[in-house]
Amino acid sequence: MAATPARIVMKFGGTSMAGIERIRNVANRVKREVDAGNQVAVVVSAMAGETDRLVNFCREASSLYDPKEYDVVVSAGEQVTSGLLAIALQAIGVPARSWLGWQLPIHTSDAHASARIEEIDTAALDRALSSGQVAVIPGFQGVADSADGEQGRVTTLGRGGSDTSAVAVAAAMKADRCDIYTDVDGVYTTDPRIVPRARKLKKVTYEEMLELASVGAKVLQTRSVGLAMKENVRVQVLSSFTGDDAPMADTLPGTMIVGEEEIDDMERQLITGIAHDKNEAKITLTNVSDTPGSVAAIFAPLAKANINVDMIIQNIAHQSAGRAGSTDVTFTVPAVDLARSIQALNEAKESIGFEELVHDTRVAKISVVGVGMKSHAGVASKMFTTLGERGINIQAISTSEIKVSVLIHEDETELAVRVLHTAYGLDAEEAAA
Amino acid sequence: MAATPARIVMKFGGTSMAGIERIRNVANRVKREVDAGNQVAVVVSAMAGETDRLVNFCREASSLYDPKEYDVVVSAGEQVTSGLLAIALQAIGVPARSWLGWQLPIHTSDAHASARIEEIDTAALDRALSSGQVAVIPGFQGVADSADGEQGRVTTLGRGGSDTSAVAVAAAMKADRCDIYTDVDGVYTTDPRIVPRARKLKKVTYEEMLELASVGAKVLQTRSVGLAMKENVRVQVLSSFTGDDAPMADTLPGTMIVGEEEIDDMERQLITGIAHDKNEAKITLTNVSDTPGSVAAIFAPLAKANINVDMIIQNIAHQSAGRAGSTDVTFTVPAVDLARSIQALNEAKESIGFEELVHDTRVAKISVVGVGMKSHAGVASKMFTTLGERGINIQAISTSEIKVSVLIHEDETELAVRVLHTAYGLDAEEAAA
Repeated sequence: MAATPARIVMKFGGTSMAGIERIRNVANRVKREVDAGNQVAVVVSAMAGETDRLVNFCREASSLYDPKEYDVVVSAGEQVTSGLLAIALQAIGVPARSWLGWQLPIHTSDAHASARIEEIDTAALDRALSSGQVAVIPGFQGVADSADGEQGRVTTLGRGGSDTSAVAVAAAMKADRCDIYTDVDGVYTTDPRIVPRARKLKKVTYEEMLELASVGAKVLQTRSVGLAMKENVRVQVLSSFTGDDAPMADTLPGTMIVGEEEIDDMERQLITGIAHDKNEAKITLTNVSDTPGSVAAIFAPLAKANINVDMIIQNIAHQSAGRAGSTDVTFTVPAVDLARSIQALNEAKESIGFEELVHDTRVAKISVVGVGMKSHAGVASKMFTTLGERGINIQAISTSEIKVSVLIHEDETELAVRVLHTAYGLDAEEAAA
Repeated sequence: MAATPARIVMKFGGTSMAGIERIRNVANRVKREVDAGNQVAVVVSAMAGETDRLVNFCREASSLYDPKEYDVVVSAGEQVTSGLLAIALQAIGVPARSWLGWQLPIHTSDAHASARIEEIDTAALDRALSSGQVAVIPGFQGVADSADGEQGRVTTLGRGGSDTSAVAVAAAMKADRCDIYTDVDGVYTTDPRIVPRARKLKKVTYEEMLELASVGAKVLQTRSVGLAMKENVRVQVLSSFTGDDAPMADTLPGTMIVGEEEIDDMERQLITGIAHDKNEAKITLTNVSDTPGSVAAIFAPLAKANINVDMIIQNIAHQSAGRAGSTDVTFTVPAVDLARSIQALNEAKESIGFEELVHDTRVAKISVVGVGMKSHAGVASKMFTTLGERGINIQAISTSEIKVSVLIHEDETELAVRVLHTAYGLDAEEAAA
């Protein structure tokens, strides 16, 4: 009985596609999977720097460029690399062809420049893969009919969208694995530049990866992890290079991103990793009147301005004789949105009714993440104690089922990450390479 | 009664599209036609140098690249400029959108990398133009279903194909005019670098333009002129620049390429221009047996190798006692095909039965072209006399209805062009700019 061939999606980023020598290395890596009897679809990014070049052309042409035309321009980068990889594969005897977004097609929403994949037609893809042909698919692009009646216009998914393309293709073709080749070799317990003893994780759950990604451990685009979780796609993060220009080595095992049920008890860690994020800003409104509707009055204008509010703390109301209680409300927003947030809040000052607006960008969010904490008490407590012993002041706290985050002064980021990494027993025997 | 708006196709080459500043100039030039009440489609080339860059990528990836994937790669250049011009037009208040080859669609043959346009669907184009939107169309590309069952693959028309795209679009949309903006400002009686007193022609017939183009006056791609003639498209060649980087000036009148019936007797010249071509090579086979079938035996292997033979002369047979007559046969081939021609002929030496193969690349073809010569005798005679008086030796002669060509030593090219230009009364009062 012949074994059913595995279906694999391989995704290569811009660094791996930067120039013909590297594209040849990618082709060799793909050939190894084909030679092993697998059916392979490859999703490619544009050459490193190319998308920036094309985006800059659009900005130069008009600061208010039409996103539909922007998509026509910037999607060209992946079109070029997909054709070139198909040529490089054929050159080493691997049957291959490129499938542009409109050819498969990859149907997306009509939100040009940040479209979402809605459906991938797999009829042609299935035929190609079953016949032993490698399908080379440009990432980041799709096609959409727009609400205003225009049909079949090119769309793109927003920066970093190729990870999402890869996961979506893997889901559509029911792939056994989606291998994402990047310039890191996996997901670590924390940033190895801060903690040399950070360990590479063999497995991590989707939920953990989402929390790690959203708080600053940027290995995969967050949206791609969410999609992998929803579609239950097994994603592997692994390195495409041993050195900057070295040919691709025999691939070292990377990190598998899987459902919680795939991690058995032996493997399960209480805490998976420590993440840090310096891109938040803290805003405090003082003496907000403590009446029903006052908190809604704060966050409605921010929501209207499309600003994501993260940590929120409302202090105990000050009671004073003769008037309603008042309270200080503290929250964080992305640092890039701080100016717009201040403007939105000041415009609504009367309806909110606060005294002062105080803001601070010199903050960092430190998070401990792990599915294990669902069943273990004391994770948060250990975090507060550990930081307290080092004299690190906690300015705000937020928690989720699998994460505890604290806001601290940004100068203490590295110290906090290091002591927490040790406190939760994450340090490796030897320093990471 | 409102005047019916004119429909115009404007085509801009790579030099005009090289960078955002120049694309903005193109947009302004297009706006002037729109403001004048015209319906406008614009056909664009890739930025100067971009197609070469993409072609080189393909060649680097494999010397035997798949032309289908080559087309995916190289068509990206025009995709980028069409999106950018649409953005630049919108930025100055001109409604515009890009229409990629597969979107209109522009149906072509499946001869990838050198496809021919078969049909352009004009339904969407008509709606867009009638609504006042400028249609920006990438030149050089189309889409084809291939004989082997693949549907909707990207094709390209071969180098210089954007001129052909422009003429085909003009024919499909029944345009009143197809304006080709180039880096020369029109068609001249001869190369102004050789003859400073060359005159810019106001009008030239399709047939003359074909003869001028095919013998070295490269202003338009030959195929585009043939298509314009077949479809009766009025083509105007005009300059997009006054200087290398200067903004587009008020356009000077260029050269109109039209049917013979549009040139009235007053305008008709005996001779329209003098062309020269140094890209031919001469081959002589000596002592070919003068029997039926021997000439066919020479040209069959060349045809099989896809080599275009141009001028052919067969000398009078030498009669000698006791054996069949023999003759020398001389002909020209493109210089780039000389090596292949020699190989093909030597391989067929036995079946042809020649003594020696003599070749010479130091030759030039000089042609006098003009529809007027149809009704005037003595054009060829004047040519031979003029050259003879200067001691210029004629190695071969060929003629068509509107052209007389001679082959001479290439060192005498400039002298021959100059004396013929004067002899046929083409010199302007003042030197060309």
